Amino acid sequence: MKIIHTADWHLGRILNGKSLLEDQVYILNKFIETMKLERPDIIVIAGDLYDTSYPNKDAIQLLERTIDTLNLEMNIPLIMINGNHDSKERLNYGAKWFEKSQMYIRTSLEDMNKPISFGKVDFYTMPFATINEMQYFFEDNTIETHQQALSKVLTYMNEVLDKNKINIFIGHLTVQGGIRSESERPLTIGTVEAVEASAFNQFDRVMLGHLHHPFSIDSNYINYSGSLLQYSFSETKQPKGYKIVQIEDREIKDKFVPIAPLRQLEVIEGNYEDAVQEQLEVKSKENYLHFKLKHMSHVSDPMMHLKQIYPNTLALTNQTFDFNMPMHHENIEIQKLDDETIIDNFYNSITDEHLTTNQSKKIEKIMTALLEGSSK
Amino acid sequence: MKIIHTADWHLGRILNGKSLLEDQVYILNKFIETMKLERPDIIVIAGDLYDTSYPNKDAIQLLERTIDTLNLEMNIPLIMINGNHDSKERLNYGAKWFEKSQMYIRTSLEDMNKPISFGKVDFYTMPFATINEMQYFFEDNTIETHQQALSKVLTYMNEVLDKNKINIFIGHLTVQGGIRSESERPLTIGTVEAVEASAFNQFDRVMLGHLHHPFSIDSNYINYSGSLLQYSFSETKQPKGYKIVQIEDREIKDKFVPIAPLRQLEVIEGNYEDAVQEQLEVKSKENYLHFKLKHMSHVSDPMMHLKQIYPNTLALTNQTFDFNMPMHHENIEIQKLDDETIIDNFYNSITDEHLTTNQSKKIEKIMTALLEGSSK
Repeated sequence: MKIIHTADWHLGRILNGKSLLEDQVYILNKFIETMKLERPDIIVIAGDLYDTSYPNKDAIQLLERTIDTLNLEMNIPLIMINGNHDSKERLNYGAKWFEKSQMYIRTSLEDMNKPISFGKVDFYTMPFATINEMQYFFEDNTIETHQQALSKVLTYMNEVLDKNKINIFIGHLTVQGGIRSESERPLTIGTVEAVEASAFNQFDRVMLGHLHHPFSIDSNYINYSGSLLQYSFSETKQPKGYKIVQIEDREIKDKFVPIAPLRQLEVIEGNYEDAVQEQLEVKSKENYLHFKLKHMSHVSDPMMHLKQIYPNTLALTNQTFDFNMPMHHENIEIQKLDDETIIDNFYNSITDEHLTTNQSKKIEKIMTALLEGSSK
Repeated sequence: MKIIHTADWHLGRILNGKSLLEDQVYILNKFIETMKLERPDIIVIAGDLYDTSYPNKDAIQLLERTIDTLNLEMNIPLIMINGNHDSKERLNYGAKWFEKSQMYIRTSLEDMNKPISFGKVDFYTMPFATINEMQYFFEDNTIETHQQALSKVLTYMNEVLDKNKINIFIGHLTVQGGIRSESERPLTIGTVEAVEASAFNQFDRVMLGHLHHPFSIDSNYINYSGSLLQYSFSETKQPKGYKIVQIEDREIKDKFVPIAPLRQLEVIEGNYEDAVQEQLEVKSKENYLHFKLKHMSHVSDPMMHLKQIYPNTLALTNQTFDFNMPMHHENIEIQKLDDETIIDNFYNSITDEHLTTNQSKKIEKIMTALLEGSSK
C-alpha cells in the first residue's frame, strides 16, 4: 500500500498582506501532477487545510477543485482531519456525501474509535480539539494539558485497536522535540502543548500535521509531512513537499519528496545601497523577500525603491535598529564619557556618521542652556 | 409525480438584532416531519437557502442536517438553485459529490441548458445571476435588464427543450404583478427587475423563489412557494408553508400547505398604557412583536417595560411621531396664529398635553427676549 502523507496546506494564507493564492494554485497543480505519477492508494491530509476558520471564496474553490480532481476524477481515497486553523463545521460540510466516494473528512471526537479500514490497514483519526472540547467529550475536568488529552485519546483508541492489523494514527499536534516556526499558531496559550513521542507506541505509524518542517522529529515511526509551502520567513531553510509511506507486509518505509514552489521565501541581509545596486545575492527577484538592511536611515521610502527591483518584497527591517544585537561591542562605560561624546556615539550608531562641527556647536549650546536651566 | 416546491429559507436570518435560528430549526423539523407523510418524489428549493453570503456555523449546520435527512436518510432527490442572498461558491461546495445521491445544487449559468430529468419531467434551472454575470455569460453587453437576460435564458433553454416532455422552470426572480415585502432585498438597484409572466409560456410549470408571499402572482402555471417563515413585519398577514405540485399524465395541480411556526410576527397598535396593562390584543406574548404606540413620550425606556411582558418585542415605533400620517387633520393656517398658540399646538401634538400657565409664561418671556433681540 502506498500512502501519501501531506498536511498544513493553509489555503487562503496571507503573508504580510500578500495573498499566496497564486502560489497555492501552482503548488496544488504540481501536487496533482505528481499524484498522477505516484498513483497512491490513499492520501492523508493531517490538518490545517485552510489558514483561517473563515476561508474566502478562492480558498474554498481551490480546495474543492483539488479534492474533486484527486477523489472524483482520479479515484484516490482521501482522509483529512481538521487542524487548529480549520473550522470544523466548514471543513466537514458535506462529509456524509463525500464518504460515499471514499473521501473521509474527520472532525469529530466521536469518530476517534472508528478507524477507517483499507484492507489490513486501519487509520485512526484524532482531529484537533481544544482542551475544553476534550474535557467535555471525555466528561473529565481533570484534563488540563494536551499530553493528558492524548493519553485519554490513546486509551480510547486502544479499546478497539486490532493488533493483527497495521495501525496508523493521524493527528494534528506537537510532539516534543519538534522544530517550530513562526507560522504555526500555538495550539493553546498558557498550557503545555507538546506531547511525548513515547505515547504513540501502540501504533505502527504516526502521521502528523502542525509542525511545518518535514524533519521536525527524529523518529523511525512518527512523521511530520511538513507544510506544502514556506509560510513564514523562519521557514526559508525548510524543504517543502510530501511524504510517501510504503507498506509492504509489516515493513513500513517512508521517503520525503520535495516539490518546487512558484516562489521561495528569502531573507536578504546587507547594506541598503548594495540591495538597490543588486549587489546582494538573491536567488530570484520574483521570490518573496524579507530585507534586513543597514545604512538606510537617510533613505525616504526605501520599501518603494526595493519593490521597484524586487516586486515581491514583503518585509523590510532596519538592521541598524536591531536591538536584539548588542549595539556596542566594546563595553563602553557611559559614566566616564562627556555628554558630547555620548551624543556623537549615539548619532554614529544610528547614522554611521559623526556629528559635523556645526552640529557639535549647536548641541553644545543646547546642553549648556539645559544645564544652566537645571542649576537654577 | 409529486413535487414539493419551497424557497426562501433564509437560514441565518437576523431580524432586528434577533437570530431566528431557533424558529428555523423548529420549522425545518416540522418540514421534515411533513415530508415523511407527503413522501414526495422530488423537493425543489428555489433559492435563498441562506440569508447571507457569509452564513454562520449554525446556519451551515442547520442546512446540512436538513438536506442530510431529506436526501441521505429519506432518499428524496433535491434540486436547489442559489438566490440573490446566497453565495454561489459556498452554496454549491461539494455539489459534484452530492449529485451522486441525486442532490442537485445548481448555481452555474453553464448548466441552464442541461435539464435534470426524472422520467418524463425535465427541470430547467436558472440560478440567480447579476446583469453583469449574464452579460459575461452570453457575451452580450446589450443586456441591461432582467427581462432581457431572461429572454436570452429562455431562448438558450428553448434550443434543447423537448416538447414531448413536461418542462419545469426553476428560478429566483420577480415576475410582474408580484406582491413585495420588506425582506426581499431588491435584485439590483436602478434597473427594471421584474420580468413579464408571458415570457415563460414554453414551460408547463414555473417554480419560483424570491417573493415571500405564496400567492404573489395570479397565474395557473407560474408559482411562488413563498418563504418558510415570516421574515419582516410587512409579512405578518402572509401564510407560510410549501406547495405540492402533482403531475398526472399532462395534468398539473398545485396546493398550498401551511406550516405553523414557533412564533409569528405581529404588529400591535394602540396606546402605550394599554400595551403595558395588557389591554391590547396580542395573539401570543411569545410572538415577535412590533409595537406602534401612542402616548408614550414621557415614559423612560418603554422598550424595557414592554420586554418585561412581551420578551420577543423586536421593534417599537412612537406613533405620535409618525410623519407619514397627516399631523393636523384640520388645515391650520399657521400664519394666522400667534406664536404662543403655535408652540402650544406643537407641544400638544407631541405630548397630548397643553402648556401649563407656568410654561406659557416662561415661553412668553423667552419669545419677548428673542423678538427684542432681533429688532435691535
